[in-house]
Amino acid sequence: MADKNITAEDLAHQLRAVSVAEFFEKNRHLLGYENPTKALITIVKELMDNSLDACEEARILPDIKVSIKEIAPERFKVKVEDNGPGIVEEKLPLAFGKLLYGSKFHRLKMSRGTQGLGASGAILYSQLTTGKPSKIASSTGKEIHEIELMIDVNKNDPKIVSHKEEKNSGKWHGIKIELETEARYIEGKQSVFEYLRQTAMSNPYAKIIYDGPNGKVEFERVVKEMPPLPREIKPHPYGVEIGLLRRMLASTNARNLVGFLTSDFSRVGRGTALQICKLAKLDTDRKPHDLSHDEMEKLHKSMQMVKLIGPPTDCLSPLSEKLLEEGLRKETKAEFVVAVTRPPSVYRGNPFQVECALAFGGELPKEGSSQLFRFANKVPLLYHASDCATTDAVVDTDWKRYGFSQSSGQLPQGQLGIFIHFASVWVPYTSEGKQAIASYPEIVKEMKLALQEAGRKLAVYVRQKNRMHDRQMRKELFEKYIPELAESLEKLSGDKKEKLIEALEKIIKKSAIKSEENEKEGDGREPEKTG
Amino acid sequence: MADKNITAEDLAHQLRAVSVAEFFEKNRHLLGYENPTKALITIVKELMDNSLDACEEARILPDIKVSIKEIAPERFKVKVEDNGPGIVEEKLPLAFGKLLYGSKFHRLKMSRGTQGLGASGAILYSQLTTGKPSKIASSTGKEIHEIELMIDVNKNDPKIVSHKEEKNSGKWHGIKIELETEARYIEGKQSVFEYLRQTAMSNPYAKIIYDGPNGKVEFERVVKEMPPLPREIKPHPYGVEIGLLRRMLASTNARNLVGFLTSDFSRVGRGTALQICKLAKLDTDRKPHDLSHDEMEKLHKSMQMVKLIGPPTDCLSPLSEKLLEEGLRKETKAEFVVAVTRPPSVYRGNPFQVECALAFGGELPKEGSSQLFRFANKVPLLYHASDCATTDAVVDTDWKRYGFSQSSGQLPQGQLGIFIHFASVWVPYTSEGKQAIASYPEIVKEMKLALQEAGRKLAVYVRQKNRMHDRQMRKELFEKYIPELAESLEKLSGDKKEKLIEALEKIIKKSAIKSEENEKEGDGREPEKTG
Repeated sequence: MADKNITAEDLAHQLRAVSVAEFFEKNRHLLGYENPTKALITIVKELMDNSLDACEEARILPDIKVSIKEIAPERFKVKVEDNGPGIVEEKLPLAFGKLLYGSKFHRLKMSRGTQGLGASGAILYSQLTTGKPSKIASSTGKEIHEIELMIDVNKNDPKIVSHKEEKNSGKWHGIKIELETEARYIEGKQSVFEYLRQTAMSNPYAKIIYDGPNGKVEFERVVKEMPPLPREIKPHPYGVEIGLLRRMLASTNARNLVGFLTSDFSRVGRGTALQICKLAKLDTDRKPHDLSHDEMEKLHKSMQMVKLIGPPTDCLSPLSEKLLEEGLRKETKAEFVVAVTRPPSVYRGNPFQVECALAFGGELPKEGSSQLFRFANKVPLLYHASDCATTDAVVDTDWKRYGFSQSSGQLPQGQLGIFIHFASVWVPYTSEGKQAIASYPEIVKEMKLALQEAGRKLAVYVRQKNRMHDRQMRKELFEKYIPELAESLEKLSGDKKEKLIEALEKIIKKSAIKSEENEKEGDGREPEKTG
Repeated sequence: MADKNITAEDLAHQLRAVSVAEFFEKNRHLLGYENPTKALITIVKELMDNSLDACEEARILPDIKVSIKEIAPERFKVKVEDNGPGIVEEKLPLAFGKLLYGSKFHRLKMSRGTQGLGASGAILYSQLTTGKPSKIASSTGKEIHEIELMIDVNKNDPKIVSHKEEKNSGKWHGIKIELETEARYIEGKQSVFEYLRQTAMSNPYAKIIYDGPNGKVEFERVVKEMPPLPREIKPHPYGVEIGLLRRMLASTNARNLVGFLTSDFSRVGRGTALQICKLAKLDTDRKPHDLSHDEMEKLHKSMQMVKLIGPPTDCLSPLSEKLLEEGLRKETKAEFVVAVTRPPSVYRGNPFQVECALAFGGELPKEGSSQLFRFANKVPLLYHASDCATTDAVVDTDWKRYGFSQSSGQLPQGQLGIFIHFASVWVPYTSEGKQAIASYPEIVKEMKLALQEAGRKLAVYVRQKNRMHDRQMRKELFEKYIPELAESLEKLSGDKKEKLIEALEKIIKKSAIKSEENEKEGDGREPEKTG
């Protein structure tokens, strides 16, 4: 049947491992490098994310300088400098020269970066398109280490091209990174400038100086306090798959099941641990390493059956309504801003929290659709809006209730800015490019509740404004016709025209006051559905 | 300024490597496992892709059995068995138990699988959701090896749970894989059944037996020849970034530049190699390993400057117009099918080829939007249609020219099936889930040209049909009024009614023939734009 061009033995010779660096070099679009315009934004974003995370962890108010210079057509030099804690010398090469290497993957705590793919991905793209090493300077406050670094793509390992140690008389601490890349620079809705502007909105405690191809801009610090430092938490029993449980059982230091359950999970006290063991018909003294597959399955099932409170939420660091309002008011110059921070919630065992703000009027565009600003862990999302849970939530909200026109499946129309912030220990991005949040029902529901609460508050203001406008129009219309009306009435009744005009004006005034009173009474909340 | 909760030293302790398996376990949505319904389709798809690839490479007409059984609520057993060449014993654990391990990543040749993430990803998801090992049986025609396998997630390495060797009296060869998984089974547009139905459409030389929760279905083999085996090619100079060039220079066996250029690239003969060296002002005898960065840049630039013919295209294996037509006609029972295979083209140095077919009438739905069937390297794409280059091409095509109504930004309306096949050595999927093709302008353009060519052919048929329909309507209308008209004329002219009717019928007949002739003349091709 077969003419056996290729045999199993031939195929066996072709089998070999692919390094992570090779994989992401070829699949660069997964990291956000699918075109030269996006590549530039991605580089700035990844380096900024790291800088902001490092500053916040060290409780340092961030001062970040970003510089982009065109050095040849479609060739740019990008520099990002922060005042964070820096990285110790020994770890510098790995932190920047190895993909999937970092501090944030194995912990449950809100941060911008997660996988250890950001800065190393930027360096990988830089060397792919220019063939050049990246320069990294770091100081923890002592001497300054400056290295030139490439990534050995076949091995996914750093290759140090040069290393200098310098005195640090100014006691500078932080990271300075400089790289060259093929890229394209644009202004507009999806641009480095817009990314930085929105970053300033969601990080009002940061100072960002941007020196770009079209001049220098400074985003000043608006507030001097940072949100509280989020705490690392243990996994919640409800969010742990059996495969992960098996691994946790194999690697735990606990000597028995009760110890394992209470020390390796959040929200499991001794009482609950005993209850879980009882449900699973497992001896509380059993060694975690010794469980058979069936016993693991029973344990896993029992963990889902006990009643537990949700995971602790101090692993989250929301912006707060105050910071939200200030950030949005500053950037949109809106005449009215309202912000809502929802209580924390849970999806797939991961705590998360939604915040939203609505801005009305000001410098927002008067015509067309409202503007949606999307953020995940304080990072602006500029791409793939149509795939994002935030968009689903806005589109599914009935904006007519709040005084805005809206076509089915569309954003509302009007001079409206909508700001949604999703904060979580694990943001379910739809791809590694980290540009859209997956539409888990729990997430969309929370977003809708936040929008509805903010929408109701805004509606009071908007209705008031619309009414005043309507009333003014009606009044003007009446006033315009009063002389004409008076003339006709004069002919009919024989009364003096001036007297009639006076009487008519009195009537208008009275009716205006009355309708105002009526409207105030009718302003009670209407019930809403969240579906 | 800082209250230094966390120092650079603290951060250093948290830094560590993430294994590829850990990464994809946590980011399972990147592999297509974002929900239980899709997980089941993804598992079947990945195993089928491997089976079809292996059979084709070994020139064996594929016989594939797929079985899905519900063994508990939301828990399924999936089995896929092929008659391919099998995998040799030594490589079996790595081929299935290590992510990013395979034969297809490092070569330029069209195939379904690419990264070495498919089967291992399915096994990873199975063990995550059930905690159980997968069973794999393989034979290359000699003894049968059966292993039970898990993946050591922390190390990304296979862990063999058991290994049996059995006699193979029936001389069976192939792979049999059996795993358990959490999943949800549905019927409909995005289902295992639909995936298999469309796979049968695009692989009419395969026989697929599907034993699912709702019964057994057999997709018979329609043709007995396979498309020609694609050949592996070398990279084309236009598609090589400088970072890759640097690596090729470092690892080549060639002793001088001319040897390097002629042996490591496609379409570079000795003359062209000399020309490239001259343009780069580099001695033809230079050792590839010795080039400085500046010299590499010059070499890279010169490679882009010489005139070269496109890459060889025998690395592609399109379906052909004949197979396309047969596949589509069989599945849609259409009354008219037209297929177009475009000549090969190139994006970013990668050869690709577009095929399309249009089916009209038959069992296609009469109301609403047309149906789009999308394929990449013969694999049906069921998800993310709105993100796909195929959709962009269909939406951008002016279907009114071909007799179909269409709203702006939408698929055309009507009883129409649109089949697009994208074949390439490297399909630019928008994510690892491999469900949508990125919209490179070169790709969308080729798709539009294919659709336009097919559209014109279909239009002739559709117009003819519409015209005949219109004419019939007009004729019927006339005929209905002839007696009435004749009666009136009789009164006016005094002629006999019967005579008048006869005359009127003659007129109708004549005018019908005339309008038919007129229409035939006007059927010349209209010029079109491709933007």
